[in-house]
Amino acid sequence: MDHADWVRKELRKLSESLGFRFTPAEEIEKRLIRVRNGMKKQEMEFILVIQKMNVYYLSGTTQDGLLVVPMEGKPLLLIKREVERANVESPLKEIVSLKSIREIPSLIQSHFGKIPKRLGLELDVLPVKDYFKFQELLPAMNFMDASTILREARKIKSLFEIDLMGKAGEIGKKVYQEARKILKEGMTEIEFGGLLEAVAKRYGHEGLLRVRSLNYEAYTWHVLSGLTGGIVSQSDSPMGGLGLSPAFPVGASLKVMKAHEPILVDFGTCFHGYQADETRMFCMGKMKQKFVDAFKACKEIHDLVLEETRPGAHCEAIFTETLKLAEKLGYKDNFLGPPGLQTRFIGHGIGLELNELPFIAQGQSYCLEEGMTFAVEPKIVFPGEGSAGLENTVAVTKSGCEILTPIEQGIFQV
Amino acid sequence: MDHADWVRKELRKLSESLGFRFTPAEEIEKRLIRVRNGMKKQEMEFILVIQKMNVYYLSGTTQDGLLVVPMEGKPLLLIKREVERANVESPLKEIVSLKSIREIPSLIQSHFGKIPKRLGLELDVLPVKDYFKFQELLPAMNFMDASTILREARKIKSLFEIDLMGKAGEIGKKVYQEARKILKEGMTEIEFGGLLEAVAKRYGHEGLLRVRSLNYEAYTWHVLSGLTGGIVSQSDSPMGGLGLSPAFPVGASLKVMKAHEPILVDFGTCFHGYQADETRMFCMGKMKQKFVDAFKACKEIHDLVLEETRPGAHCEAIFTETLKLAEKLGYKDNFLGPPGLQTRFIGHGIGLELNELPFIAQGQSYCLEEGMTFAVEPKIVFPGEGSAGLENTVAVTKSGCEILTPIEQGIFQV
Repeated sequence: MDHADWVRKELRKLSESLGFRFTPAEEIEKRLIRVRNGMKKQEMEFILVIQKMNVYYLSGTTQDGLLVVPMEGKPLLLIKREVERANVESPLKEIVSLKSIREIPSLIQSHFGKIPKRLGLELDVLPVKDYFKFQELLPAMNFMDASTILREARKIKSLFEIDLMGKAGEIGKKVYQEARKILKEGMTEIEFGGLLEAVAKRYGHEGLLRVRSLNYEAYTWHVLSGLTGGIVSQSDSPMGGLGLSPAFPVGASLKVMKAHEPILVDFGTCFHGYQADETRMFCMGKMKQKFVDAFKACKEIHDLVLEETRPGAHCEAIFTETLKLAEKLGYKDNFLGPPGLQTRFIGHGIGLELNELPFIAQGQSYCLEEGMTFAVEPKIVFPGEGSAGLENTVAVTKSGCEILTPIEQGIFQV
Repeated sequence: MDHADWVRKELRKLSESLGFRFTPAEEIEKRLIRVRNGMKKQEMEFILVIQKMNVYYLSGTTQDGLLVVPMEGKPLLLIKREVERANVESPLKEIVSLKSIREIPSLIQSHFGKIPKRLGLELDVLPVKDYFKFQELLPAMNFMDASTILREARKIKSLFEIDLMGKAGEIGKKVYQEARKILKEGMTEIEFGGLLEAVAKRYGHEGLLRVRSLNYEAYTWHVLSGLTGGIVSQSDSPMGGLGLSPAFPVGASLKVMKAHEPILVDFGTCFHGYQADETRMFCMGKMKQKFVDAFKACKEIHDLVLEETRPGAHCEAIFTETLKLAEKLGYKDNFLGPPGLQTRFIGHGIGLELNELPFIAQGQSYCLEEGMTFAVEPKIVFPGEGSAGLENTVAVTKSGCEILTPIEQGIFQV
């Protein structure tokens, strides 16, 4: 059978029978309005969208290709591989096959009747070599940076997107429920983490988490037990754990987990590209009082953030309040990292990527808006001993917030 | 306890007790010679190494930072987070803390006594925004592309590196051995894949595979059963599978695996950053004869590549021979993908990334050298029905090759 024939006749049916949700045309339309509002302010005529998650956001497909978004008229999706599949997955009408990026100028010319003068590119992630190639292919072009426009557009989630994040949160709930049965003395951190990931995948978790960065990598889960919870590593987070090697110096290690140690499980799940992030504490037997107390402080700080979360609340002001509360509770030096290595955020925007807007952090002088989604994660770190923490993902509603990670918030003692 | 104190006193001991191997100073020295040979040809004075795997290759750590490699003298490692840990992990002597990239010019000046005129950057991956920032910080600089120099240096593996890849291959062997016990009728592809990954992690597999690309993502495993094995997707591979959603349209899906279907398991493992890649076929009960025959053809093509593999063998010539053999065996139209979508490579270099040099592929006019490592993966694809294939990772030796993925090569019938 011909692959194109099979895809046209069977792929949608098979995909839907296995739970695929395709992005509706109206959803893309609304997103395009948000992007074009940004383009208008900068008098940008076109954007050439290249980064996979931006292409997905505006086309509904992650097949390998580029999306041309004009200020007016229909976007043009150029697909290297696989164009028939992109046709099934994307509600866009103008989808053509792209053999080489050398064809881009002529495809733009023939589709739109002109080559724009002011073209936006995602300069925050586009490699320099590709930029030079575009300069060569489009010599008279005024290249502009479209990355902020796209980040700003994506920072407000639709009900469609929040629903997908909620589905990711439901997978997370199942993981934490089964985790209590899986955790056993003598297990290593990595063995426990691997089994949790197997549970998540069984329920449709997509395995990879995504982050917008050249070097920063997202891991599905961190399992840190006792002293590994007190180790800071490469990432901008309160603690990183030991990891498995100098090439992966974060997350779970081959350390055996012991009774009474605080075990921190930071587990992200992903459904249709949309992520939910959460952290819970486990203990085999009774947890040392120091960490029970630190957990209670984290819970109090977490609840403060949720109380403050509503449209109009100032991101940096919320962060500053958490610092004050941490100090009042006696954790000034260990809140969000050990002395000298304390991070300066209590929450990070989340959606298709783990580092979206907004950040509930130092220097973030803007306000929350309805439809923003972020993970709030107070953590307290004691080097050489361990850490405590709690994390949930929330969506900002009309008057407050909704938790997208519905598992109970206490310590899981087994 | 102070984090720095704890790291200095305890981290190395704890890491080594859990199997960490640190890159020896002599290993780094040899790698630097290779890099400097490339720099010399281009009269490059310095390289500012930024991409994580290149930094790891030349420093032994993946702590967040940059490495300044001068043509002569000691490299300077600038670490944003976490500098004490970098000191433990890296054998380099010159390691300093970096608060902001604005400090780079003054640190180079004070360390080397001069600011170079000809500076190499990794233009294949460096984002444009970062490039603009370096142009602003180093206004008189002649920026050059160091990406080829670094790729060329990394293409020949040392015994230290090949040993780590062999360790990854041994983890893979355990996965395939246990897979036979795990596979059961009624399981979904993703459930099976998740359980295999849990096995791999238990033995120290690092979870993430790495690939050098803005958009191309590596998945640890593809489990494709029956018709999903006939589906091509975004990646430049013979088939991609259905996946879990339009955001992850590759690899295992929620499809239930059935008796007699060909089940293709393409599983990559990673140990200390070094990867091994392999594919085996499974079947519950007797596999349909069409796929048994196709597997035999893949095995014959695989063996041909291994026979031809030795220093001096021409990469494109090997590829062309596999096309001829596939045609002779009756698989001209389905070898390496379905008609119109056939890929043009039978092998890809592998090491810290899945897309290293060499490529055994069309247009690759160079010869194999001792110490190169690649995965050879003949695959035959029938749209609407399924696929067959076999894959191993090999190292080129003095007179032939050594297989780094030691599991038996037949069909695994359960």
